Order: sequence, then structure tokens, then C-alpha cells
Amino acid sequence: MCGIIGIYGNPEASNLAYLGLYAQQHRGQEGAGIVTIDDRGAHRHMGQGLVSDVFSNRKVVESLPGSRAIGHTRYSTTGGLDAKNVGPLLFNVQNQPVAIAHNGNLVNLKATRLRLQRDGAIFQTSTDTEIIIHLMARSNAKRMVDRTVDALSQVEGAYSLLILTPEGLIAARDPRGWRPFVIGRLGESWVFASETCALDLIGAQVLRDVQPGEVLQIDDDGLATVHQLPAQPLKHCIFEYVYFARPDSRIFGDNVDKMRRKLGITLADEAPAPGADITISVPDSSNTAALGYADRSGIRHEIGLIRNHYVGRSFIRPEQRLRDLTVKLKFNTVKGVLEDREVVIVDDSIVRGTTMRRLVRLLRQAGVKKVHVRIASPPIRHPCHFGLDFPTEQELIAGRDSVDQIREYLEADTLEYLSLDGLRNSMDRPGDQFCTACFSGDYPIVPEAGSDKQIFENSVAGAD
Amino acid sequence: MCGIIGIYGNPEASNLAYLGLYAQQHRGQEGAGIVTIDDRGAHRHMGQGLVSDVFSNRKVVESLPGSRAIGHTRYSTTGGLDAKNVGPLLFNVQNQPVAIAHNGNLVNLKATRLRLQRDGAIFQTSTDTEIIIHLMARSNAKRMVDRTVDALSQVEGAYSLLILTPEGLIAARDPRGWRPFVIGRLGESWVFASETCALDLIGAQVLRDVQPGEVLQIDDDGLATVHQLPAQPLKHCIFEYVYFARPDSRIFGDNVDKMRRKLGITLADEAPAPGADITISVPDSSNTAALGYADRSGIRHEIGLIRNHYVGRSFIRPEQRLRDLTVKLKFNTVKGVLEDREVVIVDDSIVRGTTMRRLVRLLRQAGVKKVHVRIASPPIRHPCHFGLDFPTEQELIAGRDSVDQIREYLEADTLEYLSLDGLRNSMDRPGDQFCTACFSGDYPIVPEAGSDKQIFENSVAGAD
Amino acid sequence: MCGIIGIYGNPEASNLAYLGLYAQQHRGQEGAGIVTIDDRGAHRHMGQGLVSDVFSNRKVVESLPGSRAIGHTRYSTTGGLDAKNVGPLLFNVQNQPVAIAHNGNLVNLKATRLRLQRDGAIFQTSTDTEIIIHLMARSNAKRMVDRTVDALSQVEGAYSLLILTPEGLIAARDPRGWRPFVIGRLGESWVFASETCALDLIGAQVLRDVQPGEVLQIDDDGLATVHQLPAQPLKHCIFEYVYFARPDSRIFGDNVDKMRRKLGITLADEAPAPGADITISVPDSSNTAALGYADRSGIRHEIGLIRNHYVGRSFIRPEQRLRDLTVKLKFNTVKGVLEDREVVIVDDSIVRGTTMRRLVRLLRQAGVKKVHVRIASPPIRHPCHFGLDFPTEQELIAGRDSVDQIREYLEADTLEYLSLDGLRNSMDRPGDQFCTACFSGDYPIVPEAGSDKQIFENSVAGAD
Amino acid sequence: MCGIIGIYGNPEASNLAYLGLYAQQHRGQEGAGIVTIDDRGAHRHMGQGLVSDVFSNRKVVESLPGSRAIGHTRYSTTGGLDAKNVGPLLFNVQNQPVAIAHNGNLVNLKATRLRLQRDGAIFQTSTDTEIIIHLMARSNAKRMVDRTVDALSQVEGAYSLLILTPEGLIAARDPRGWRPFVIGRLGESWVFASETCALDLIGAQVLRDVQPGEVLQIDDDGLATVHQLPAQPLKHCIFEYVYFARPDSRIFGDNVDKMRRKLGITLADEAPAPGADITISVPDSSNTAALGYADRSGIRHEIGLIRNHYVGRSFIRPEQRLRDLTVKLKFNTVKGVLEDREVVIVDDSIVRGTTMRRLVRLLRQAGVKKVHVRIASPPIRHPCHFGLDFPTEQELIAGRDSVDQIREYLEADTLEYLSLDGLRNSMDRPGDQFCTACFSGDYPIVPEAGSDKQIFENSVAGAD
Repeated sequence: MCGIIGIYGNPEASNLAYLGLYAQQHRGQEGAGIVTIDDRGAHRHMGQGLVSDVFSNRKVVESLPGSRAIGHTRYSTTGGLDAKNVGPLLFNVQNQPVAIAHNGNLVNLKATRLRLQRDGAIFQTSTDTEIIIHLMARSNAKRMVDRTVDALSQVEGAYSLLILTPEGLIAARDPRGWRPFVIGRLGESWVFASETCALDLIGAQVLRDVQPGEVLQIDDDGLATVHQLPAQPLKHCIFEYVYFARPDSRIFGDNVDKMRRKLGITLADEAPAPGADITISVPDSSNTAALGYADRSGIRHEIGLIRNHYVGRSFIRPEQRLRDLTVKLKFNTVKGVLEDREVVIVDDSIVRGTTMRRLVRLLRQAGVKKVHVRIASPPIRHPCHFGLDFPTEQELIAGRDSVDQIREYLEADTLEYLSLDGLRNSMDRPGDQFCTACFSGDYPIVPEAGSDKQIFENSVAGAD
Repeated sequence: MCGIIGIYGNPEASNLAYLGLYAQQHRGQEGAGIVTIDDRGAHRHMGQGLVSDVFSNRKVVESLPGSRAIGHTRYSTTGGLDAKNVGPLLFNVQNQPVAIAHNGNLVNLKATRLRLQRDGAIFQTSTDTEIIIHLMARSNAKRMVDRTVDALSQVEGAYSLLILTPEGLIAARDPRGWRPFVIGRLGESWVFASETCALDLIGAQVLRDVQPGEVLQIDDDGLATVHQLPAQPLKHCIFEYVYFARPDSRIFGDNVDKMRRKLGITLADEAPAPGADITISVPDSSNTAALGYADRSGIRHEIGLIRNHYVGRSFIRPEQRLRDLTVKLKFNTVKGVLEDREVVIVDDSIVRGTTMRRLVRLLRQAGVKKVHVRIASPPIRHPCHFGLDFPTEQELIAGRDSVDQIREYLEADTLEYLSLDGLRNSMDRPGDQFCTACFSGDYPIVPEAGSDKQIFENSVAGAD
Repeated sequence: MCGIIGIYGNPEASNLAYLGLYAQQHRGQEGAGIVTIDDRGAHRHMGQGLVSDVFSNRKVVESLPGSRAIGHTRYSTTGGLDAKNVGPLLFNVQNQPVAIAHNGNLVNLKATRLRLQRDGAIFQTSTDTEIIIHLMARSNAKRMVDRTVDALSQVEGAYSLLILTPEGLIAARDPRGWRPFVIGRLGESWVFASETCALDLIGAQVLRDVQPGEVLQIDDDGLATVHQLPAQPLKHCIFEYVYFARPDSRIFGDNVDKMRRKLGITLADEAPAPGADITISVPDSSNTAALGYADRSGIRHEIGLIRNHYVGRSFIRPEQRLRDLTVKLKFNTVKGVLEDREVVIVDDSIVRGTTMRRLVRLLRQAGVKKVHVRIASPPIRHPCHFGLDFPTEQELIAGRDSVDQIREYLEADTLEYLSLDGLRNSMDRPGDQFCTACFSGDYPIVPEAGSDKQIFENSVAGAD
Repeated sequence: MCGIIGIYGNPEASNLAYLGLYAQQHRGQEGAGIVTIDDRGAHRHMGQGLVSDVFSNRKVVESLPGSRAIGHTRYSTTGGLDAKNVGPLLFNVQNQPVAIAHNGNLVNLKATRLRLQRDGAIFQTSTDTEIIIHLMARSNAKRMVDRTVDALSQVEGAYSLLILTPEGLIAARDPRGWRPFVIGRLGESWVFASETCALDLIGAQVLRDVQPGEVLQIDDDGLATVHQLPAQPLKHCIFEYVYFARPDSRIFGDNVDKMRRKLGITLADEAPAPGADITISVPDSSNTAALGYADRSGIRHEIGLIRNHYVGRSFIRPEQRLRDLTVKLKFNTVKGVLEDREVVIVDDSIVRGTTMRRLVRLLRQAGVKKVHVRIASPPIRHPCHFGLDFPTEQELIAGRDSVDQIREYLEADTLEYLSLDGLRNSMDRPGDQFCTACFSGDYPIVPEAGSDKQIFENSVAGAD
């Protein structure tokens, strides 16, 4: 997953982009970057690590002049950890700088890539995003926004895109509306972001979503919708509500926090835990779902786990990891709360199961009598091809094991998940407007076999 | 405040010390260091910043050999931010390396310091701690532990001390027991720490507290209490319970979390908020007190503020700070929870009031109708001379303003503090066994006028 | 100017390349890089600064595995100081990694570049070298070496090229033989370098020059000359003998030191200094020419200037520069040698004249009575378009001033240059086999007006 | 060895001190530092490495305010490589900052050190210099300069000392005048340096030497000689002329370059090389001696070895060192000069012999027919206790081997040294005014057995 931000028409563009990335740090912790374009050309700064590491001092941000900026926080999907894959990518197209920031993932690129290479295209990165640039470079259209439309007509998948050129700022969203994408205004200037929390931080007003299939451009004449791609059934990513988006954001038309609380309520209805003394959350991701569960079930909410705020970069020796140190460094148990209690621990989802297994042990060490694990979403059984970096089916615990096997692995007394229907029905809009492929295996676009990624990445390994 | 850790008789001593510092990171974020002593001499690594920054890779820890280590996380009280003031301090006494880690603060040193200088003592740091070393160096006793007793007989104030020498590991605590200090065992090895959470992390068992006034030594013959300093009335720092210690620690004989919940309960009794819809905390420091308040008052607990986990090192331009960005970067509001509600916000304490003022504004921006501020401790009116780094009376908002003036400054609808009696009576041991000087101005030791600190710091300014 | 190195078939390839770059450090101090290719793909490390800074520890070199390597030391001609312009450049052509290291400069690229961009080519760097790669990517030939021939048939200028691909190591030299380029053997492995001094350092035997116009490939079947480009009159850069190459190298068939001494001898014949007491050099560049002058003229050689070996990175405040500090930091005068003497100072060439002006002053301060400046090459009046980074005509002192004006500017008593005929006649091969454009303005290829460089560099400015 | 610099009464004091260190870089490459003192206190910057590394930007120098500065370049004699041993050392004596920079070495400190420790002195460094500070701190005198006299009356050995206090700048030199030490003036301000080359660089005029045994102070009343220590026979270090001092300096009353040339002349008389074709030097240290030899002997001087200016920090793999790479990286041979010649190579001295052995091999590889090694000083057979960092007798090749054995080890055809009488008689002042202990074993002060250094260094090992 990634977070993107765009600013048009503000003298503090790079600084606002920095803050917008900061607010969306949860969408990608592997790298961050900002590109601005002014009369002198394009200006770029990017790096690996957190936004606050990459932009560790004011001077770096101030070295990016101009009133137009786009930014990107990276969470690798395709492309390796190579620094040059950190966005926004910057290219020279027809002697013009073109920068691109992309949230989502294109699929089924193999044929297009091979055709481009046969024509002499030289790829600079191992990202899916670069395909769009090569298609733009080969378009016969004159305006960059029309070249963008040409290019997007030849690809499919999930994308919320920001493209900055000397002509203006282009925004585009795939016809299924997979990833969130919002337009706002800050005084006279325009702001684009993955989530509304970025607009809140910089004090911008939310205007509307970039519409599914919309290609628009902002230039000095204002906003113009340039093109509407052919309609497709809506497929918003339901996992954004479950886990990914920030609880204080509003996406796909609803408050994340509100939806997450409803998941907790539905879970309490579907999977009660009659004898339990207290409900606890796994801070901070499942706080709201746990409160929903506690309220509905009447099982008192307590703070039994405290998250260590300094966990950042600590190293641990391999042999220590076996001793559950990883999770102990991240979470502290509050014995006074947990001792001799029967506890419901509510989490949003389970991917590999390793953390929950360690948490269950930690709870037992703190004297918990019984551990009831309740998950506010269905079992994740399938990888995502549209932007989430889930592992393969074999690595997803629910991809290979039954719920009872998982419970055994977790060493929990009971384990219950929210049902797929329960999840869908908790939504405020019709359930079929959501992509639930990671739970159901029902992919809106069937991905081709094999992976472009592998072909390319083997050929260039940076030692930088 | 500072956190200290000591390990004796473990081949992984430096690594355990590192983890012990890590667990006590909340006690000091300005610097960290570890000293080990083995047959080849003393080995030291220290630096400014977080434990994970100072010990940023395994090699640094592994470069500290030996089975005996002491560590220190620094939170400056006396001595400037100079790197050489970061503990543990390491000295050469009688051709022996002597390392010292100190939590607390000595007082009334002026005469002693002048006497020492007149005798030719050359001070290396601007810390209070170094006085002890000079007194040890001038003692006629033979064993280092006896020199330590000599030295401690000539100073007063708050100290939990670890002194590592080739002869063994010395631990000492001031007769009033101001700061927490605990002994544990990990297999055959000995562990000392400020708080039990450090023992928990490395899997050590809690044995007992270092007793107030006790001077003990661990050597290859085991633990021996070498000396008991003249008894004084106990004066545990009550603010450790209010804010400083980690909620999952046990100090002065009680669970911090449990005591903090009792403060919330007493606060609910003393200062109800009849019309309020929900109770929220300021995560993560006041979580437990807020739960106590919510439970007792029956006003539902909600998560209205979310703490940003990445806030660490972000820079903000001065003009932005005016726009409340500082607090917005640190906390996100959950509008769905807050909008159109009447809210009780419970915090543990107020020092300068700037953060709470910004939080109140943030709540209003999120649509809160009424804000009731409830503080789970009395107004802080006086500086601490025993280890807490409170500002001067003029900078303490309650040092200059009445509660009503503070309420006005905070722009809150109501503001109530826990009473001093309420605080004392919430404790499980008699209230007069606690130092409450920051609330009451009743200093167990009257500090001399002027400050040693100023005299010395002016004379040496490092450009390093 | 740049230095290049290539290794084929040696398990220590990256390490030998590092040493080869080190030996050729004088050919480029702005950046250095090495690329290796093995079965896993390409591996690259590069950076700005000296070879010893970029490859500051063994691990970096060892992280470049494989038995085939090319390396490059950079001295910017086209392309800005941007790190990504540091060679060897690495591209992905038809899903194969292709690395290229280039010494020289292509000219008259504008039309080709525009054509490529119109076809959708996306340029990654602002170097002339990248054109070759795009031409290769668009070739219909199958083997990379044949694509190279296709590409080189479409460009002109000066180039000694090394191209590393999974198919083998390609070497090519422009038909005029502008820059030196030598093949050597180290046991069973092959070595390519700009100068023989690189072969000497690693103990390789010199085999022969890469012939002007030759395109060859080394693969596991050995060396094969694949193509011979259409013949052109030879135009070796005569300035390599005057200043650029290392005195212990053998280039264009002759020892540099020997040729440089001949320049000193001819200079003594053309421009004697009858009353002078001693001859001194400007260490270390003009040592040999000065010895030649001293021997021929009979004016005793002395060491009057000593070069400071630590001058590397010293900073100087602007106002200090006015006080001749720059040259005083670099050179020390030996008063005992200089005082009350009449001195001939021999230098190899004068570019801007600032250093010589300061040296003359320094000599006067040391008590020299008369200063006779003798230059072992003609006045440099024209910029170089074939690889040397001379400034514009207006910045070249001899581009705007007469010899007498220069003498006045230098504050020298007399000033004489070697004549162009004297220079040509000192060579062991016919004088018309050399490019003397910087002295004569007689360019073997007339460069087009304007500069590709400017067009492109303005559009992308890195803040990295 | 070390270099020292002092500035009094100049607003650019730290900057001048930086330049003065820079000029004296050859006297110590392991570390450098500057201390200034102004009304606000003392300011210090120091670090390991070259002056240009430690003071790598203007800001660092500008962060050292005030008109009084002392500086030090370190070349370890006593004390380990620990950063805190880098001078100038800075102490707090009687609540006053006292900085000290020392060139030379104190001897026979053991008893004094033990006495101080018994009295409670805590040593901060493992340097001999710190003893002086502790003696000053214990003196009953009031002024720091009188405390200095007290302290110096209790120690012996070689010292040129600068001590900076809020009261003024103290300079002192041991009664034997072991190390050079000069006073200069720059306008109204005072300058002190080890060598005159430092004064030359900053444009200061040489006034006179600090006299042997003189203790003087500069304060706002100007220079006053405060004390004259009891006279001793002069013992200037003759090795300063042989190798250590910069050729353009004037020390002990004579030009270094002039004395070095006389050594070459005497060597030519004592040790001719009849059949030789050319004389070469080992650049840059023996250039002058070689010129002297060439002139006197009539054997033509040539440049056969070129020193690589970039050798600084290159790493070499251990197995490569065996292949003579170390010396090949440092020196290039000029084959055209050397091939088929019989060569005299003149060097200033031989310590371990490894470099000369490798040079002889390098010459042979370049085709030299016969190698005659001539050394412009006698065999070094004994360690220095007065400031030079020679190895032990066992490591000194002439400490264990005869001249003929050394010749065999060097693989030279002939080897001859200057005689001790030849050395002494080349001096302009009586030969008994020089310390020649390293050649003759005749120590002006007999050093006590054992070494203070070892005792202390074992006890504290920094991991910083």
C-alpha cells in the first residue's frame, strides 16, 4: 500500500506535501519522496525509511521550491527495496519532467512490457508504475493529460494516480474505485490525498472524491475533468475499513472509525464470549473494534496491553526472538488488569498469526485464565493483487489451516472470526461494491500466471 | 529522571543491560550508555538520543565484553546536554576504573564542591554524580564499597545508585527511598533496575527492593549488605505513581497501574461531570486513570484521541506551531466519536498547560460541545529538586495561576484537579511516606539558594 | 576527462577494478563507480568523490561479485554533478543489464536526441553516453556487440568505451584514437584501461592498444575484433602528453615522462633564461619538464616549492582567498633556496592563470629577485569538445589576452611559451596525428552551435 | 610528535589556530583540536584524523569564539588512540577552565602519579600531560602561571607547552630546549607555534624562540617572562633536522632545508657511489638531501619515483600486501628514467626498513641495474623517550642488525649511512647541543624502567 499527496497553487507546496505524507505514514513506511516542478524544472527528494527520517530537517523541504508538489509514501508491492523504486518517480518525457505517484497495483502487464522493450524502451525501475510513463512517451497526443488517458486505456488494475508536469497536475482513479482518493481545497489551492486525515492535518476542506474512472487536470484555469474511462462495477477495497485506513479518515463516503466499530458490534453478535471478565484490544489497531465489541457484549473494556512507543529500530539477536522478545519489546502487559481474569482479545485481522500467538502467550504469563480471540474480519485466505502486500497463500495462516488449527496454533481457548456476510452487511453501501478477494478469492480481475516482478528484478541488483 | 540497570554474572551482560535500558526508555530519552568491566579493564559506549539510536546495531553491544554491566538512560537534571554528562560516568580512581549510574538528584553540594576544588580536585563533568566519585577517591577506606559508604555519608538528596568496579557491583539507595530500585535474579546472575518492567522484559524474577539507606555489594561471593545509612522518614516520590513509572511496573510495593486507576476513581468521586456523554483519555499516559474515572462515574469510555506513533522527530516550522500543528501531529481526533458530544478528558497532570490547551481546541474543532478537563493529581506548583525536571515556579502554570485562571487559559468549560488529600488517601501506604513537594511545597530537604549547576556550566561550553 | 577499467575472467574482478581506478584517480576526481555482472544479474556501487572515499572499505568491493567488472572515474564534461551521472551507467536493455563506461565526449548529438525522444525514448541521465544505449535498444541486431556497432555508426566524437553485458565485455575506440586505451593480460584474464599505469599497479602485462575504430568483444571464447569503423585521420589528444596522463604511463606508443622531458628540452632551446640562477618546477605536474629544461639550459634544478600533501579538503574563508592563502595552503616555499635568486619556474600549461599569478607572488615573498615563467606548451586559447573540461574562451586567459598581457597579469619578469611547432616537433610521430585544437582552434570535427547539455539540465534538478 | 599553536588577541583566533595546525599537519596526523576561552567560558572542538577532517567546515571553526586560542595536532606518544587523549586537553581547575597543548614527552612520572592518586586525584586521560594539571590544581599559588611554575618544577622531560586560562596564555619550554618553539606577532596579536612554517602561512612575523627553561605569560599587559627554570645543557632534537620538521621552517636558529642539504653533501663526501648514473630521492621527505648529494657527487638528479597524492585512505587486502601493493599504491616508478640505470637512492633515515625494501624491489622491477642506498643520518638504534614515536629496539632494524645485514634485507647492492660525527659536524652549532639518543643511546635523562603508559591504559578501554 502507499499514500499519495498532491498540492497545486500554494507557495508552501513542498511543506504541505511533507505534512500530508506525515499524516499518511501508516500507508507506507519503507520510503518517502516529494517532487516539485517550477519554472526551473523538477526538484526531487526521496529516501528509504519513515517520512520523518527522509525529511529530517527543514532545509530538505525548503530545497524543493515551487507551488506544485506531489508526494508518496512507499510500501513495496512490485519492485524491490531499491531506493530508485521509491516514489514519486521522475522521468524525462519529450524533454519535460514528468513525476508520478501511484497508490494501487497494475496487473497483467507482461505483454505490454515485452512489446515496449522490443520497441527499444529502457526501464529504469522495477515498478509497475513505470509502464504508464513509457506508454505516455509513445502516445501521439500533444498534452500530457491526453497522453495519460492514452496510457491508462492500455492498462488495468487498481490505481489512484497523481502526475505532475509543467502543464499541470493530473489525477486519475481506476474505474472500480479500488483505493480511496480525495480532493480538497486549502484557500485558493488544491489538495489531493489518499485519505482525508491528510487534509485535516493541513487544515484543508474536503471537496469530493476523485470519481472512479475519472481523469482530471488542475492547471491555472482550475479543475477540469478531461476524460471518463469506461465504467466498471465498483470494487472498493473492504480491507481499508478493516485495517488499513486511519480511524479518523473518511473514505468511500464513510468514517473509518464508525465502520470499524460496527465490525466490533457485529462480531459481538456473531461470536459472544459468555464467561469473559474483560475485553481488551491490541493497541492501537483494534481499539475501536474492541470498544464496539465491549459495548455490545457488555464485557467491560480494559487496557491490558500497552504499546511501547520507542520500539522503532531496536535490534534483537536471533536467539532472543525465540524467547518471545519481539512481542515483549512491542507490548507490555498490565498484570493488575489481567491476572486471574478470563479475557476477550479483539483484533482486526490475522495474517501469519505469529504476533497473536505471542500475545496469547504474553497474556498467559500475565496470569490470564482463559483467552478468547475474536477477529473483526473473516480469515484472510488469498493474496491481494491490487495493492496490499499480503504474503502467498502458503504463508497466510488461514490459507492453509482451518479455524480450529489456527486456534491450536495460537494456543487460545477459543477463536472466532467475523463472517464474510457479517462483514459485508456491516457496510453502509451494498456489499457487492467492495473487493473482498483476500477473504473470498473472488478476484474482480483475474491475474495472469507468473509475475513480471521476478523477471526483471533478477537482472539488476544494486549494491548501493 | 533517569533509568538505571545493572547486571552481574551473566555472559550476555551488555546485551541484557541494553534490553533493560530499552524497557526503561520512558525514564530518559536524552542519552543512554553502558559500561562493562572485565579483566582487560572498562568498556564503555554512550551517546545522545534514544536507546535504539545509541545502540543501533548488535556490534556496538557486542563490543562491550564481560559478565558485569551497568547502564543508564539520561533525562538531564543537573549538567548540560553535553555528551560527557551521559551516564554511566566512568572514572579512574586509584588506577581502577569506576563506573557510576545514578537516578535521582543530590542537593546542597556547594560547600562540598568548593572544598574539593580547593583540595585540587578536577571536575570532569557538570553532574552532581561526580561529587560522589571525588569523595570516594579521597576516602582512606580500602575497598571501593567502603569508600562509597564514606562518600554517601557526606551527601544528601535522592539517589538510586549503581557503581561498578573490578571488585564488584555496588548498589545504594538514599535513606528516604525517593526513587524506585529493585533487585532481581536471572538464573544465577543478579539484576538491578529502577523499575520491574526491565526485569520482566529480560525474564528476571523480582527479589526485593534495595532498601532505603542500604549500601550493598555483589561480588563472586554473592550479595552482602555492607552498610545501612542512618534512617530517615520515608519519602517515596508520589509522582512516580501519577505519571512517571510505566503502568506495568511495580514500585514502592504496588502496581503502578492499580494506583493510577485508584486516582481515576477518587477523581470521579471528587470531581464528577454530570452531563457528560463520554470519557476520553490522553493516550497513552492517562489511559488507566481515565478508565477508572469512566468506571466509577458511569460515563462511557471512548477513544476520541489517537496518538500518532511516528511523531518522533518531525520538524515543524515556527509559524506552523501557532496553528496548533504540534498537537495535531501528535494526536488525531476521531470525529465520529466526538462530534456533538459533551466530553470528559482525563489527564494525569498539567505542567505548563500548552498541550492541554491545544487538545481542548482540537476537541472543539472535532465538534465537541462541552469539554470537561479532569486531572488525576493536584496542581503542580513547585519545582522538584530530587530528580524530576519540572520548570521553575513561574513556568509552572499552577505556580502562577489559580485553577479558574487555568481553566480560562485552557478554554475548557470546566476544570477540576484531584485534591492533595485525595491523592494521599488513594495510596496503599500512609500518605506521609511520600514526597509531595511539587504539589505542596513541603520539601523533605530544604534546598540551598542558588544552583551549583549555573556556576560550573558557564565555565566550560563544548563545541563538540 | 575520465579513466576507465575493465576486467574479464578474474575471480577478483571488482577488487582489480578498484585498484585500476585508484591508479587512474588523476583522470577524474568527482566520482567513481564499478559494475559487475554475474549469473544473478548486475551489481553496482558508485558515489561522488575520490575512489578511496567511494570504495572506503573492503566490504563495498566484496559486495560486487563475479569475474567481470568495469569501472569509471568521473570528471564531468557533459551532465551535471548529479550522482546518477557517475559511471559506469547501468541500463536495462531488452531485459538484460548493460553497463557502460566512457572516456571522451560525443559531439553533435542534438538531432539524434530529438529523434529518439520523438520516438518515446526516456532519458535517465544528462550524459552524452546514454545516447549510445538508446541507439542500442532500438537496433535490430541480436547480439549486444552488433547493437553497439549499429549505435556507434550513428554518433561521432571521442570515445574509449567499455560495455559490459551478460554476453561479454565490449571495447570500442573512436576512429581518430582521441583518447588512450590499452589491452592487457593478467594470467588468463583480460584487462582494459585508459592508461598503462593501471595495468602496472595490478601486475598485468600490456598487450596492445585498442585500435582506433576497433570494436571488439571478449567472451569465453577469447578476444574477437567484431568490427572496424570507417577510417579517419588519427587525432590523438596532445594534451595527454602535456599534462593529463600520468608520467609513468605509456600512451599512443610512447612514455609520457619521456615526451614531457622533450617538451622541457625544446622549451629550453626556444626560450632560454640567460641570467637565471636556478630552475624550479611546480610540483608535481611539471617536475619532468623542468628537469628537461634544467638539463638542457644548464641552469641548476632546485626544489623551491614543496607541495602540501594534506591539502585535500581544507576550507578557506572567502576573504582569506584574497590574501593568497589558497596557494599558500597548497605550496610551501623554501626560502633558503629562493632568497636573492633569479629563478626560472617551468610549468606545463596555463589555463586561467590564477595559480601561476599567486605562485609568482609567493616566490617574491620568499625573496626571489627575478621570476622567469616558462610554459612547456603553447597558449591554450580554445575550449575542448572532446573530453577535457577547459572553460570557455573568455575564461581562458590566453583566449582573451596576449602573451605580454598575461606576463603583466602574472607579474612575472619574463614569460615564454613553447611554440605550436615546437610542441608538434617534439612528438615521436607526425604532428598531424594529434588533435591540437585547444592551442590552434583547428577542430577535427566542427561542433554544432548550442549545447545539448543546457537544454536538458534545466529540466531536472535533483535535490538529493 | 605533535604540533602546537597559540593565538592571543586576535578576533579570528580560532581560524588562525586552524591554519596554524594545518601548516603543522606533518607533526601529527592522528588527531587535532582547538580550545578557545572567552568571557562565556571555554569552547572546544577536537577529533581523530587530519586537521582538514576534524575541522571539515567553516562552521566548526566559527563555533569557537573569542580572541584567544590554542591548538594541537596529535601523534600519539603516551596515551592510547582514545579520542579523549586528543589535545588540547581541557580541565576545570578551581572552577576555571584550563586548556593545555603539549609537544614533547615527560619522563619518570611513576612516583608523582602514584602520589597524586593516593591523594585522591582522578585521572581523565592516559596522557603524561595531565600530570601537569593535577600538580597545578594542588599548588598553593594564586595565579595560574605561578601554579604552572610549581608544576613544572616537579617534572622533567621534553616539553613545549601552551596553557590557556581566563588569566592569559602561558608558554613554557623545557630547560634543554628539546623541541622547537617560536613566538611571532601578527599585527597587535601574539602567535606561538612549534615551527615557523605556521607563522609564515598566516603572515605572522617571527619574533624569537621561547627560550629553554622560560615560563612566560601573555595577557592584556603584553608578554612577561615569569620564571626561568634552572639551566641545563641544551639538547635540541637533531632528528627534527633529519626528518621531522618541515623543510621551509626555521628551527633552533637555522633553516631546516639548509641543514638537510648539508647532510646530503656530507653524505656524498662520506659515501660516494662512483659508478652510478643518477641520484633519486624518496619524495617528498628526502628531496633536499638527495639534491645535496647529487650536487656534491656530480651524479645527475632525476625523478624516478613519483608519489601518489591520493593514497590517503585506500584499503588493501592482506594477501595483496605481500605483493608489494602497499608501496606501489604510494609510489610510481618512471621507467623511462630508471631502466638500465645504476641508481643512488637517498633517504633521510631507516626505521623498520620495510618501505625501503619494497622501494628497492620496485626499482628493480622498473629495470634498474644496480641500487645504491644512501641514508642521510646514522642508523637508528634506540627508542626516543622525548617525543618521537620510534618502536622498540627489537623493531628498529638497526637496533638488531648490522649495516651489512640491513643491506641484505633491503636487497640493495650497496648501503651506506651518514656517520654520527658527520651528522654532528654538519650542524651550525656545537654537536653536543643536540640530543642524538636515538642514534647513540646517550640519553640526556635516563628513563625509569617500565612505563606508566601500560599501567593505566589497561584499565580503561573505550568502545566509543
